[in-house]
Amino acid sequence: MPQKIGKFTTRLDTSPSILSFASVVSKKEGEGPLAGYFDIICDDTAFGEQTWEKAESRMQKDAVNKALEKAGLSSSGIDYIFAGDLLNQCISSTYGLRDLGIPFFGLFGACSTMAESLCLSGMLVEGGLANTVVAVTSSHFCSAERQFRFPLEYGGQRTPTSQWTVTGAGAAILGKQTAPPYLREICVGTIEDMGIKDMNNMGAAMAPAAAATLSRFFEDTCTGPDNYDLILTGDLGLVGSSLLCDLLAKEGYALAGKHNDCGLLIYDREKQDVHAGGSGCGCCASVLCSYVLPAIREGTLRDVLFIATGALMSPTSVQQGESIPSIAHLAHISALPGPQ
Amino acid sequence: MPQKIGKFTTRLDTSPSILSFASVVSKKEGEGPLAGYFDIICDDTAFGEQTWEKAESRMQKDAVNKALEKAGLSSSGIDYIFAGDLLNQCISSTYGLRDLGIPFFGLFGACSTMAESLCLSGMLVEGGLANTVVAVTSSHFCSAERQFRFPLEYGGQRTPTSQWTVTGAGAAILGKQTAPPYLREICVGTIEDMGIKDMNNMGAAMAPAAAATLSRFFEDTCTGPDNYDLILTGDLGLVGSSLLCDLLAKEGYALAGKHNDCGLLIYDREKQDVHAGGSGCGCCASVLCSYVLPAIREGTLRDVLFIATGALMSPTSVQQGESIPSIAHLAHISALPGPQ
Repeated sequence: MPQKIGKFTTRLDTSPSILSFASVVSKKEGEGPLAGYFDIICDDTAFGEQTWEKAESRMQKDAVNKALEKAGLSSSGIDYIFAGDLLNQCISSTYGLRDLGIPFFGLFGACSTMAESLCLSGMLVEGGLANTVVAVTSSHFCSAERQFRFPLEYGGQRTPTSQWTVTGAGAAILGKQTAPPYLREICVGTIEDMGIKDMNNMGAAMAPAAAATLSRFFEDTCTGPDNYDLILTGDLGLVGSSLLCDLLAKEGYALAGKHNDCGLLIYDREKQDVHAGGSGCGCCASVLCSYVLPAIREGTLRDVLFIATGALMSPTSVQQGESIPSIAHLAHISALPGPQ
Repeated sequence: MPQKIGKFTTRLDTSPSILSFASVVSKKEGEGPLAGYFDIICDDTAFGEQTWEKAESRMQKDAVNKALEKAGLSSSGIDYIFAGDLLNQCISSTYGLRDLGIPFFGLFGACSTMAESLCLSGMLVEGGLANTVVAVTSSHFCSAERQFRFPLEYGGQRTPTSQWTVTGAGAAILGKQTAPPYLREICVGTIEDMGIKDMNNMGAAMAPAAAATLSRFFEDTCTGPDNYDLILTGDLGLVGSSLLCDLLAKEGYALAGKHNDCGLLIYDREKQDVHAGGSGCGCCASVLCSYVLPAIREGTLRDVLFIATGALMSPTSVQQGESIPSIAHLAHISALPGPQ
């Protein structure tokens, strides 16, 4: 039986396995430090499609199909799929996955979607409600820029705190316990809002949510940073990561040497002109499903806390003077299953 | 233990209860045939807020707080909340619910959101992953019109097939089995796309999804329309309802006398100038949480199939020449719990 630990954390007693996973990225990500880890790198940012939105849909479909192929599964063997993305009405997911015929749960968690979908997938497997579930998300630099910021043709200058939306997708298939990686615990976030209003400083808006979820998880589980090999946030970037460390230091938790951020791992900030680092749903999805999960499977990383954060505003809410609410969900992924 | 029946349907063996529910609507809905059933009717379509988006957020918050109050619960007694809406980045939900401090799962299922959130809430309770879960959604005529169609000031003429977005919200709290209504079975939909491209004829785009989910459910459970007192779709309206009946007749299921649609119940089509009926996430949410659930609680309705459909396009995808994918999720809600 699943077990609530403290107020916010749930221990998945059956330790569901991440059976398979796959990542898809484009040219810029393929020129970064993680190039050797991705399953598919497409140099054409349009992925052979006529629009950026369709390119993003294509990435999500390719990521799911690749993960299915690696697991030796067909889409008819999947009970449910959880998917979401940043675009209005989540069209990358709905158009990308419409041909698969898998019972579909659409999510909106902004850049927290990969962690949100992992949590829900793990819960359904743990509760005996599903045997195999897919969690998938994506983002695309060009579709995000024109929706959230400026038309690319405008050539607007970017502030130093701004982050570069990753063109990428990641998909993971969860199932009953077989082999590592195992999903051991989850901690679902609440909406946090510290009053940040700068749409070009998402890291700062999201850091308080990551701090809240992490400190609740540590408290609920009576653990601290030393119990984990890696504490990996989704896309706080340089500014948000530094803020997170400061916020948790005030709570008595020292993240130094343990924390990293997918937005800092995916690009070479010295050479790739991405300012404060990578961002977008596809950032942590593609990093998790390429670089991180194989390391847990092989045992080079044993215990990883994966915390994806989402900024839950829209251009409309910001234009109306609203601040930026954010959320962070956590998944403890391990090379070892938990005690039964 | 939950039990998969056939390929698509899951029987919730513990028959979770819908512990409490509440509905919030505005002036036009308060002038319709269901006026006497709503918890809150606010004649000010802005709900005292400065923008329509904030008004919609306010409705969602009020619906949740009213449902909590009716159950004698506080927000700290809720394990999770599932919420979503039609607006870009689901801002009605995120801004409306940010102060509640409840672990939050954001959904995007368009007008299927109430059924999607009921299915997921029921699954978590059934699987022992939660004791109490809230499912909530909303829509607002004015925020939807300006986002999906034309500025209101433009005064554009509406086609006969167009539907009127309900200004309303509905919230339901699910928990372990105590009293009726009970959630007995769920059937999660797949994305269907029959190639409809007319954004002013949502009913036609969504009817095939409702037909697919309903016929799968009948097949999985070896039941038919005669086994239920009411088969209630979300917002197919006049055109979509007629199509649904035609599509199911071809499969050998006669819906006549059993089927109704929330979009046809909520307005008086003769007097209220809503063309093909009501629509929006808040349509079936407010009808379910006002008129339908009390009837099941009192036993005047015994077995109801609640099927909410969502059209999963965006203005961008339609401008790019895409057709409208849709989805339908089903919840069998009953005055009697299932056999253990």
